[in-house]
Amino acid sequence: MALTHYPVVNKNGEIITSAVTNLDLHDIARAVRTFGARAFYVVTPLADQKRLVEKIVSHWTEGFGSTYNPKRRKALEMIHIKESMNQVLEHIAASGEGFPKVTVTCARDIDTRPGISYKAFRKLLQSGNPYLLVFGTAWGLSEPFIAKADYIIEPIKGNTGYNHLSVRCAAAIMLDRLMGKHNLN
Amino acid sequence: MALTHYPVVNKNGEIITSAVTNLDLHDIARAVRTFGARAFYVVTPLADQKRLVEKIVSHWTEGFGSTYNPKRRKALEMIHIKESMNQVLEHIAASGEGFPKVTVTCARDIDTRPGISYKAFRKLLQSGNPYLLVFGTAWGLSEPFIAKADYIIEPIKGNTGYNHLSVRCAAAIMLDRLMGKHNLN
Repeated sequence: MALTHYPVVNKNGEIITSAVTNLDLHDIARAVRTFGARAFYVVTPLADQKRLVEKIVSHWTEGFGSTYNPKRRKALEMIHIKESMNQVLEHIAASGEGFPKVTVTCARDIDTRPGISYKAFRKLLQSGNPYLLVFGTAWGLSEPFIAKADYIIEPIKGNTGYNHLSVRCAAAIMLDRLMGKHNLN
Repeated sequence: MALTHYPVVNKNGEIITSAVTNLDLHDIARAVRTFGARAFYVVTPLADQKRLVEKIVSHWTEGFGSTYNPKRRKALEMIHIKESMNQVLEHIAASGEGFPKVTVTCARDIDTRPGISYKAFRKLLQSGNPYLLVFGTAWGLSEPFIAKADYIIEPIKGNTGYNHLSVRCAAAIMLDRLMGKHNLN
């Protein structure tokens, strides 16, 4: 799984680099660990933001936090900090998995390209091939980034017309839908 | 749905009143709105914490935030602030729904009392009777509070022995499991 802070859009649809949110790191790392995803990549091209993430992660994995709350350590250990999505792909390839197929998330339907269903993507994950699931921060991933992806996963829909989940909650729900043990139907 | 800050336990199992976390309000309100739960009760017995929640909610429902981001307004409008769980039950009863059955959440299995499954609870919700789903902050709801509940819902389990989700992510996953539209199996 990857959470990227570039290229994402702001409220007006302009491409920006967003700031890192501390609780995104904690919440998504804990969900990644719970559902057994292989790694959690945090992507930011900004040097000061990268240092901030390194500081947070090392507090919980090596510093005071690692003994104060070892369960938090086990979650934050899943984090790899990268400057670009290419660095993420190369890191996965270098681990011997090969280059992953990139699947992007988007809160709205893309008219020109129907999203892959959770059921179908769950099956793909069980194939053993590597897949990278990418979440955007701010108002979501940029259109050109979405257009380049191998797959778009269908949006999470509730029972209402409203679907404005935080990226933390959306990531947790997707992990549960794709990797959770449940029998709901 | 209710998120309570008392009676919950700390790391050492002692009963405490926890502090309110801003992102709990936002994330859970957005998930409540997305999945169509009827209301989101935030419970704290502390006067200053109650004022803090009122200030946050009114910023987004009446203040600058309400025009800056109307989608956030629609979510935070779901929040009712109460001082105790009894006040919550009375508020629901006064709305004409009758007193709800109280269902509590707990990250671990309770040895003496098996949890109700998501599938079974999903059916109960469809009956039209009122149910209140309660989440604890900090290290979770106190044992005596859990013991008094009508139902305990089974913990969310991933694919690993680890299940330390944030309350924000746990609440979102439960709403999806109980009220989401999906066909996963």
